[in-house]
Amino acid sequence: MCEACPAVDAESHTDVLIVGAGPSGLMAAYWMARYGIRARIVDKRPTKVFTGHADGLRMRTLELFDSMGIQHRVDHEAQSAVDVNFWVPGEKGQLMRQGPITPGQAHHSPFHHMLLSQARIEDFILDSIREHSDIEVERGVIAESFHYDETPGEDPNAYPITVQLRRILDDPQEKGQGSQASHSTKPSGFDQSNVPPEDHNNLAEQNQKAHVPNETVRAKYIIGCDGAHSWTRGQLNIPFEGESTEHVWGVIDTIPITDFPDIRRLCTVTSPHGTILVIPREKQLVRLYVPVQIMDEENGRFDRSKITPEAIKARVQAILAPYKFDYQILDWWTAYQIGRRIAPSFSRWNRAFIAGDAVHTHSPKVGLGMNMSMQDGFNIGWKVALVVSGAADPCILQTYHEERHRLAELLLEFDKLWAGMFTQENKPAARGAQGKTESMMQVVEQFQDFADGIKAFYGESPLVCKQSGGVNLTTCNLIPGERVPPVKLRMQAEGNNVWTTRLFESNGQFKLVVLAGDVREVAQKQRLETLSAFLSRSEPPNSSLLTRYSSIRGRSKSLVDVLTVHSAPWPDTEFFHFPEALRPLDPVFGWSYGKIWCDDSCSWDRDCDGRAYEKWGVDRKRGAVFIVRPDQYIGWVGEFEDIEKATKYFDGFLKTSKGE
Amino acid sequence: MCEACPAVDAESHTDVLIVGAGPSGLMAAYWMARYGIRARIVDKRPTKVFTGHADGLRMRTLELFDSMGIQHRVDHEAQSAVDVNFWVPGEKGQLMRQGPITPGQAHHSPFHHMLLSQARIEDFILDSIREHSDIEVERGVIAESFHYDETPGEDPNAYPITVQLRRILDDPQEKGQGSQASHSTKPSGFDQSNVPPEDHNNLAEQNQKAHVPNETVRAKYIIGCDGAHSWTRGQLNIPFEGESTEHVWGVIDTIPITDFPDIRRLCTVTSPHGTILVIPREKQLVRLYVPVQIMDEENGRFDRSKITPEAIKARVQAILAPYKFDYQILDWWTAYQIGRRIAPSFSRWNRAFIAGDAVHTHSPKVGLGMNMSMQDGFNIGWKVALVVSGAADPCILQTYHEERHRLAELLLEFDKLWAGMFTQENKPAARGAQGKTESMMQVVEQFQDFADGIKAFYGESPLVCKQSGGVNLTTCNLIPGERVPPVKLRMQAEGNNVWTTRLFESNGQFKLVVLAGDVREVAQKQRLETLSAFLSRSEPPNSSLLTRYSSIRGRSKSLVDVLTVHSAPWPDTEFFHFPEALRPLDPVFGWSYGKIWCDDSCSWDRDCDGRAYEKWGVDRKRGAVFIVRPDQYIGWVGEFEDIEKATKYFDGFLKTSKGE
Repeated sequence: MCEACPAVDAESHTDVLIVGAGPSGLMAAYWMARYGIRARIVDKRPTKVFTGHADGLRMRTLELFDSMGIQHRVDHEAQSAVDVNFWVPGEKGQLMRQGPITPGQAHHSPFHHMLLSQARIEDFILDSIREHSDIEVERGVIAESFHYDETPGEDPNAYPITVQLRRILDDPQEKGQGSQASHSTKPSGFDQSNVPPEDHNNLAEQNQKAHVPNETVRAKYIIGCDGAHSWTRGQLNIPFEGESTEHVWGVIDTIPITDFPDIRRLCTVTSPHGTILVIPREKQLVRLYVPVQIMDEENGRFDRSKITPEAIKARVQAILAPYKFDYQILDWWTAYQIGRRIAPSFSRWNRAFIAGDAVHTHSPKVGLGMNMSMQDGFNIGWKVALVVSGAADPCILQTYHEERHRLAELLLEFDKLWAGMFTQENKPAARGAQGKTESMMQVVEQFQDFADGIKAFYGESPLVCKQSGGVNLTTCNLIPGERVPPVKLRMQAEGNNVWTTRLFESNGQFKLVVLAGDVREVAQKQRLETLSAFLSRSEPPNSSLLTRYSSIRGRSKSLVDVLTVHSAPWPDTEFFHFPEALRPLDPVFGWSYGKIWCDDSCSWDRDCDGRAYEKWGVDRKRGAVFIVRPDQYIGWVGEFEDIEKATKYFDGFLKTSKGE
Repeated sequence: MCEACPAVDAESHTDVLIVGAGPSGLMAAYWMARYGIRARIVDKRPTKVFTGHADGLRMRTLELFDSMGIQHRVDHEAQSAVDVNFWVPGEKGQLMRQGPITPGQAHHSPFHHMLLSQARIEDFILDSIREHSDIEVERGVIAESFHYDETPGEDPNAYPITVQLRRILDDPQEKGQGSQASHSTKPSGFDQSNVPPEDHNNLAEQNQKAHVPNETVRAKYIIGCDGAHSWTRGQLNIPFEGESTEHVWGVIDTIPITDFPDIRRLCTVTSPHGTILVIPREKQLVRLYVPVQIMDEENGRFDRSKITPEAIKARVQAILAPYKFDYQILDWWTAYQIGRRIAPSFSRWNRAFIAGDAVHTHSPKVGLGMNMSMQDGFNIGWKVALVVSGAADPCILQTYHEERHRLAELLLEFDKLWAGMFTQENKPAARGAQGKTESMMQVVEQFQDFADGIKAFYGESPLVCKQSGGVNLTTCNLIPGERVPPVKLRMQAEGNNVWTTRLFESNGQFKLVVLAGDVREVAQKQRLETLSAFLSRSEPPNSSLLTRYSSIRGRSKSLVDVLTVHSAPWPDTEFFHFPEALRPLDPVFGWSYGKIWCDDSCSWDRDCDGRAYEKWGVDRKRGAVFIVRPDQYIGWVGEFEDIEKATKYFDGFLKTSKGE
């Protein structure tokens, strides 16, 4: 809930305070909106970003966007980049293309690697937050002091966190900066844009002088998504381990004028002058990552003042030669020194959490940073929201660090190898063109499952039960702790198709997915009836999985949504043939047509191929049951007869509804 | 350009005045926005519609939406309905499903029949208009008097049309109605919603009394999209020929509570009590078309006061029995008497045009009315805009009536047969269940190409040259006067795919599409070079097809955009191997990467199958050339060597740029 701006020093309460409204903070705020949580999100920047910053979107992120209902907008505006090319010096030193190479993962998702300005991505998430709540980002607000009261422990009614907020919007200097940041594709825009994020910290000090009223906010939980120089991380006394490297890079977003053949294709170009990364973007833009540190060889120091768009351009021209390169339109540019750092802990007291760049920084060249940050925010967001709502035990909050820290380590490992490829010696004689490409390919392939998000590696926890039941599930591809391999299903009642990424909407509910098998067979139908009877039994009180747990107030009647996917041919089945517990009647909204699905092909949609059970590694006759967490990861898998274990899974962290 | 609301009686000038901001008026306004035309669009309703009205979207409409850049939004929100079912009484009188039947046309387009509230469709077009212009719909504005001055004839600088506008927004009574119309899914909303469109005419009279300043608008062109009771049609003295029938229908949009199995499937249900049409919609809504005239058998008259939602519900219950039917949520309802009328002429003086319901009314049951109306507006919009911009001769305006009147006739023919199916005797004994279904199917199939828009039947005119050149094009499926069969192509420079429906964007330009054939072959490459040389030759002045015609001021450099689609394998070809005239260099935006396309398959997208030449019926080696009009219909087809005929085609109606 967005509270009014106080005219004088004021104290207020909020359940969740999110510091930082970049991609990870917005993803966390998305969950507050979906669960109807009283939350605030503040950002010290007076405006959102309009150009530049991150741009790479991996397939897993796009799957999550689909579950949030915004992927169609990304797809409409973003640039696709499925294939990769590698340009290396040939025997006579001339640049040669090696590729295109299509990653095998291109077939594992309905979505492919895309590129789009961070500004637009933030717009889409913001629109979704507004659609579901009154939460608005409060910009030009700096968090200044932090106090944590350990006394109340896990008391759900306590507000142990105290933060002082200062608004800087009224400061004339700040206002000027805000208006400069308005959207512009003219080169004059870059003066403002190339202020590195860390310099914004100075703004807080400058504004101490201004007579702006403070606000004291008391919160139950805080989520710090405030970037590499995170204020929150500092307040929590969490170190940021690692180091800066000597490598300095320039980044330019331009509309290039060049005869280089692959300027509109994702590629690397290696020459004796260094390696650049070429990233085609929306609206004819191209981003280039360019090594510039060699310019400072004379004194061995990194002098930022020497790095200009012109200097970056000159380096691009040297590397791309004999191809020509120039531009008239410069949309954004920046320079950065690679720092590779990680926070050893992502949380404190189970009350304060940090996410995104605040817990991991690295070179941006793997096109993964924004994805990891958004997935951090996505991971912690629903857990905090669920606990605040009173539906879940705070024990689930510990899984945030457990799940995301290991991935941050992998990220840095990947970055170290990949970024190294760009800075090592690139003489053609060194390894040979083919060798260079091969080693780059090897690194990409080694980390691809992780990078694309096909594997999450989430370990055993209250939210992930790794012990799947039954001998019939030994070849199952539904793996607790991993995502659901996307498939397209037909709705039984309508015959229309939808990808599971959209079907399993990120609406806050757990999905109990009943793979009903071939319901034409009497024995299987009987197994399904037995399972349904278990799901809907009404005594003893609260024993039904469907009514046992709290509802999400004002959002959904049950925290556990049951979806059925059968494997009989679609024309041979009817919605009303399924047990009523699987397709309940609502007195106002009628029968739940959206709950019965079919794994059958469809003549007018090639993506709907009737191979869901096959892709999921589940027996078409016997079926199985699995649980999808609110963030689209699998929590548990079992046979029909293991259904009591599903109750056990939920009982591990969900509070029962006390018969309400 | 939207002009400020005058405080006193005022006179103003606009190039185009559009009366009526429903679907057809908005489509016409879309073109004003895209061409940058000074235009105004007024509507007598104080607010836009929020519920009810039309909802059927045929595939051709969706293809046009894709060319406008809004189809992704429709696709995200709308309900699909590809299959059709027919329920008829079986031998024992019980209802039996016959189907589902998948129309063959389902494979002819990337899009399928969809259903979505007219309110949302209007939103999407409005957003697009705003994206490209400052044009805003002026609501609560009634056109009251009309004068046409025949003196200036075709003088492009004259404003021969004078219309008096009166604003009714300030009237308290109107205000009340406006606020009632705010979005609500509560049943109470229907009191307002079921005011039939014609009753709105009374509002004008009521508001004569109010002291609201009038405005006199002088316009070059007027487009009347003001519905069945069109004021514009009346001013033009164009009759509305046809008649009302005795058949009265009720329409209800509800969230049904029913055990009828196909309530979420497009179907007809025939019983001795009549035939209803079931239309599944977005957000769990279902629309039902229900015959209600039988209730008034006693006095043989249609008494509107007797038609209530309850009466309609009772009839549905009778027809669906023994299935149960009820609802708690009624989103909208109305009742109407079928009138089947057509205007014998769609225009006067080549200055005034009428479109949509103003020129054809019929029963809504074919799900085609809004589609036809939007396509009317789409057809007249770009033609008027192009003439007003000074780029084209007014002769093209005559093609509006020629192209659309024949289709309106077909529409009424279709409706007569189809609606008749719902009102004829439905006793099981009459023809037998199978016979009923067969005759319904026959009508659907007979008109399907027309209804879905796969065939437009546009005849020979300055804009459609039916004489295609060369013996190699006898089997060509690119037929002047018809749409381009949609295919997915790969962009040569990027390798990414796009449907031609999106590629041929409705941006105001004509597309000259060069099907370059297999450019690996020397002879074919030579033919292409010769063609390109013709396209780019610079003397005598203005002889190049690329620079010969006016630009669209502030929108695009050339009125004719050249796109190349070759048939060589994508990996064996390079963007820079094509003649420069086909991929020109812009000093600011660089090379035109988006102009060279390839008909090749792609491993990660099944829709991109490398069969464009095959589907278009064009020889893969020799290729062809064709012209796509701004509204996505084919204007001319020929061989490379016929290219002078393309110039002749354009010279027939485009003005040359006088070397500007």
